[in-house]
Amino acid sequence: MEVVTKIAQLKSIVERVKGEGKTIGLVPTMGYLHEGHLTLAKAARVENDLVIMSIFVNPTQFGPNEDFQSYPRDLERDKRLAKSAGVHVIFAPSVEEMYPSDGGISIHAGRQSEILCGASRPGHFNGVLQVVTKLFHLAEPDRAYFGQKDAQQVAIVQTLVRDYNFPLEIRTVPIVREEDGLAKSSRNVYLSKREREEAPAIYEALQIAKETFLSSRDVKNALNEATTHMMRKTSGTIDYLELLSYPDLQPVNEDTKEFLLATAVYIGKTRLIDNIIFSIKGETTNV
Amino acid sequence: MEVVTKIAQLKSIVERVKGEGKTIGLVPTMGYLHEGHLTLAKAARVENDLVIMSIFVNPTQFGPNEDFQSYPRDLERDKRLAKSAGVHVIFAPSVEEMYPSDGGISIHAGRQSEILCGASRPGHFNGVLQVVTKLFHLAEPDRAYFGQKDAQQVAIVQTLVRDYNFPLEIRTVPIVREEDGLAKSSRNVYLSKREREEAPAIYEALQIAKETFLSSRDVKNALNEATTHMMRKTSGTIDYLELLSYPDLQPVNEDTKEFLLATAVYIGKTRLIDNIIFSIKGETTNV
Repeated sequence: MEVVTKIAQLKSIVERVKGEGKTIGLVPTMGYLHEGHLTLAKAARVENDLVIMSIFVNPTQFGPNEDFQSYPRDLERDKRLAKSAGVHVIFAPSVEEMYPSDGGISIHAGRQSEILCGASRPGHFNGVLQVVTKLFHLAEPDRAYFGQKDAQQVAIVQTLVRDYNFPLEIRTVPIVREEDGLAKSSRNVYLSKREREEAPAIYEALQIAKETFLSSRDVKNALNEATTHMMRKTSGTIDYLELLSYPDLQPVNEDTKEFLLATAVYIGKTRLIDNIIFSIKGETTNV
Repeated sequence: MEVVTKIAQLKSIVERVKGEGKTIGLVPTMGYLHEGHLTLAKAARVENDLVIMSIFVNPTQFGPNEDFQSYPRDLERDKRLAKSAGVHVIFAPSVEEMYPSDGGISIHAGRQSEILCGASRPGHFNGVLQVVTKLFHLAEPDRAYFGQKDAQQVAIVQTLVRDYNFPLEIRTVPIVREEDGLAKSSRNVYLSKREREEAPAIYEALQIAKETFLSSRDVKNALNEATTHMMRKTSGTIDYLELLSYPDLQPVNEDTKEFLLATAVYIGKTRLIDNIIFSIKGETTNV
C-alpha cells in the first residue's frame, strides 16, 4: 500500500493505472476509520483494480462552531486498517495541498440540502460537494463509494453526478452497526459509558417508526411513536426525525415508493445520525 | 466527421478513443461558426488525436431579456465549416438532452464575475460554468480551447479548472479579426451597413488606450482617450471599458505585470466585445 500526500503523486499513479486500462474505486473518508469505512473499501476492492482511499478532514464542510479542530485523527492507525481492507493507495493531503487558491467559485447544494442535517448545518453540503468534486477530478474513479449512514449526503452527491455528468458511478453501501444496533461512527468515541448505553434506542426508534408507518400509513403517528421511545430511553434531544421520499428528499405522498426515515439526535454533546431506507414492501437497501 | 446528438453516443466515442490511449481536444461553441471558432479547431487538431466540437446554444447563460431565441443557428453550415477545420466529432445536443433533470445544485462564479460582462449579465457566468463542467465531464478532453475574445470567460474557466482540479488544460487562442480590425463574432451579422462601418473604432480605441497607458502609466487618462475616440467615431454607447490585472481581474496596481484592457459597446442594438491582453513590455498573447 502506498501513502501519498501530494496531488502530483496521486495524479501520476492515476495516470499510470488508467493508461494500463485498469479501473479505479475511490473511497472518500475523513479518516479515523471504523468498520463502516472498511466495508466501503472491501466493496471497492471487489469491483475495481485499484482502490484509492482519501483521508482528509475537509474544513469547508464544518460550520464555525463545529468540531473541525477536535475531529478525531489517527493516520498511523488508519494506515493499518486501510491496508487490512485491501486499499492500494491512501491519499492524505494537507489543507494547503487541497486548497492552495480560492478564486471565489462555489458549488451550492439546492433544496435537498435545506432539510435534515442541512437545516442545522448551513453550508455543510456545499463543502461536501466542493471536496467531492475535487477528489473525483483528482482520482478519476470509475466508482466512488459512500455509506448509507449519510443518506442525505449520498442523495446529494448522486444528484451532483447525475446533473453534472461526472463520468463515474456512485455506489452506496449499507450501514454497519454494533451488535446492539448503534450505527458505527467516528463520533461514538465521544460518548460516556452511560450515553453509549442509551444510544441504541436511536435505531430502535427508527424501527418502531417504520413498523408503525407500514401498518398505519400515518406519517405523524409513526414519528410520534419513535419520538416517545427516544424520550423514554435516552437523555438526548432530537435534532430531526423525518420520513421523506428517497432519493428526492421530498414530503411523502401517495405515490412515494421508496422512503428515507432519518434522524439526528444529540446524546449529551455528541450528535449521532441514523437512518433506514425502505420500500412499501419492506426495508430494501439496509437489510 | 461524425455528428452526434445524444450523450450516450458521445460517451461511447470518448470511451473508445481513450481506451486506445489517444488524446482529445474539446472546442466548446454555441455554433454559427466563424473564423475564430475554426482557429480553435485547428489549434486543437494540431495538439490532439481527436477533436470534438460541441455546438450548443446554452440557455442557462442567457438572461431573460437576452437573445437566446434569436441567437443565430445554422447547423448544416457549421458542419461544413467544422469538417474543413479538421473536427472529427460534432456534439450537438438538444436542450432536453443536456438538462433532463434539475436537482437544484448550482455553480456560482465569484468576484471575477461581478465586473466587465458579468456586471450587466447577472448569472451569465454561472451558466457558462454549468455547461462547461458538463461538457468537460462528457468529452473528457485533455485540452479545451477557448478564444481570448471572451477574456473574462477564459479567466473564470481557468479558475474553475484550477480550483476544482479538472484533469485537463485550458488553451487560449488569440482573437481573429476582420481586415479592418473588428473582432470576428457571430453577432456581427446583426450590424447594419453603417454600424458595420463604425465598428472598427472599438479596436482602434483599445489600441489608443494601450499606447496611452504604456507611455503615461495613467489608467484614467488611457481610458479617457479611448472613450473620446469611440464617442467621436461611433453612434454606440459604452457598456464598460476597463483596464484590469490578468487573469485575476482585479484593479491595476504598481505590481501588475499582465493587463486586460476590455470593452463592451452597444452599436445600435448589437453588443460587441473586444479586448487586448498585454504586458508591461507590450502586447503578449494578441500580437
